Amino acid sequence: MTENSYEVRPIGRVESSLTDRATAPRQGDEGAPDAWLVFQEDVHEGLRDLRAGEEVILLTWFDRAARDVLVVHPRGDLARPPQGVFTTRSPDRPNPIGLHRVTILAIEGPRFLVKGLEALDGTPIVDVKPVLAQDAAER
Amino acid sequence: MTENSYEVRPIGRVESSLTDRATAPRQGDEGAPDAWLVFQEDVHEGLRDLRAGEEVILLTWFDRAARDVLVVHPRGDLARPPQGVFTTRSPDRPNPIGLHRVTILAIEGPRFLVKGLEALDGTPIVDVKPVLAQDAAER
Repeated sequence: MTENSYEVRPIGRVESSLTDRATAPRQGDEGAPDAWLVFQEDVHEGLRDLRAGEEVILLTWFDRAARDVLVVHPRGDLARPPQGVFTTRSPDRPNPIGLHRVTILAIEGPRFLVKGLEALDGTPIVDVKPVLAQDAAER
Repeated sequence: MTENSYEVRPIGRVESSLTDRATAPRQGDEGAPDAWLVFQEDVHEGLRDLRAGEEVILLTWFDRAARDVLVVHPRGDLARPPQGVFTTRSPDRPNPIGLHRVTILAIEGPRFLVKGLEALDGTPIVDVKPVLAQDAAER
């Protein structure tokens, strides 16, 4: 890596019935299917305190996104005026990190079933974080 | 990059009075100082629709974190039992991405003043996202 870049190393992959970006839901609460998070063996120890029923924040890397995009039509709708990408959740952005708040439905060893995830099949997982009160609260 | 890694390219840096990790607040709502986000010229167009007074989600890269950590004492408190890192917000984690919900206080060209940020001076900024209802709502 150069001095001014860093290496993201996936810790797992999404297994989903979604394979086509054009028809995928825009957000998890818009009819996205349940999906499996399949974690690599080398991070299992870090997952040991997660439980079914909990909500977590999942970070993914949109590996099929365009990174040279700074202005987009929100939700891909050409009828809407273009907006700076940092006021949208477009996957096309300089660092295509996906942010998803999901509920864990079941855990089977290294496989975690989560509710309503809009990420495509094969999407790399880069982090899992607990939800904190400050994520939700007005400050 | 290898097939199984991706390159994060910072879009700016944090300017903060915080320089020492040992004494920095653990979360933004625990007495962290206001800080400047200084964006690179090549992403300005993507920022054009952000306004003072808005809340945003800021993603940073904890460039001084240890990446080989899977189990930590929450909040660095040795009196607390160790936990898998994915149930904590420790900066030490395989992909040390920081997630911060902050309010924009002022915008001066490429410099954004934000309220209560716990990131250290010089921390790379990797993304800015709008807050969506689903980030806060129970689902």
